[in-house]
Amino acid sequence: MTKQPIDQDLMARALTLAKQAQEIGEVPVGALIYHRPSAKIIAEAYNLCEATHDTSAHAEMLAIKKAQAHLGEKSLKDCDLWVTLEPCAMCAGAIAHARIGRLYYGAEDPKGGAVDNGPHLFHQPTIHHKPEIYGGLSARPSAELLKAFFASKRG
Amino acid sequence: MTKQPIDQDLMARALTLAKQAQEIGEVPVGALIYHRPSAKIIAEAYNLCEATHDTSAHAEMLAIKKAQAHLGEKSLKDCDLWVTLEPCAMCAGAIAHARIGRLYYGAEDPKGGAVDNGPHLFHQPTIHHKPEIYGGLSARPSAELLKAFFASKRG
Repeated sequence: MTKQPIDQDLMARALTLAKQAQEIGEVPVGALIYHRPSAKIIAEAYNLCEATHDTSAHAEMLAIKKAQAHLGEKSLKDCDLWVTLEPCAMCAGAIAHARIGRLYYGAEDPKGGAVDNGPHLFHQPTIHHKPEIYGGLSARPSAELLKAFFASKRG
Repeated sequence: MTKQPIDQDLMARALTLAKQAQEIGEVPVGALIYHRPSAKIIAEAYNLCEATHDTSAHAEMLAIKKAQAHLGEKSLKDCDLWVTLEPCAMCAGAIAHARIGRLYYGAEDPKGGAVDNGPHLFHQPTIHHKPEIYGGLSARPSAELLKAFFASKRG
């Protein structure tokens, strides 16, 4: 029997992915998709905007795409997305389109977040799906990783 | 010398792309990226969500990605995006990230649009780039294509 990983393990894994992004000069955000029926992580990703020149290559976008390819279907209603930073408008829109069941995120992003900041996208009547949302998990290490990254870029 | 295509040609081309989507059972939305310095279309795309199981495979997303790959850079500030339907929140977010210079769109989308409907994303202070926006161009043929498509799905 596959053991259900505890929540802390999943955010710790997302943080490890964020650190992998940092090591190659990408904005350190990591994400994974947990598939509840199989109790397995079915997709992992981190930001790849710099390497690919693709500004849509956010961790969440890549993880969602991988999970849909893995399952061979569009709906991720039985899946949870774990990500180290509050999603932006693009990623929040993608989360709605994919019908993600639950969103767990790390640090809030007052400057670019679109879930509990800015447009509060899931409260907009024209967004047709709203996941269960759990924010501020392991917020401090997620935020510190980003802060150190941007400080090093400025330095 | 490359002749500068007139605006009507560009939306007509986007409509042709939308019809190609329709022919393979995809939601008929077409998009292209016009690069002003070279006066050339550098990317064309249409919706591919069904074929790929990828709910982020909207015409705009695919066109932006192709244009960035073509230019080998992230910023599309010298480019215009032409799309037959008002972009959703995901695509509007992607347009901001890619710093698209001008957005030209066809039919308004009161149910899912995020530019002149719903969250009016480019009016949100946390969206860090706003293109010039020209909406409602060739709106009728764009809308009729979509209407016929969804009617055939229900029928």
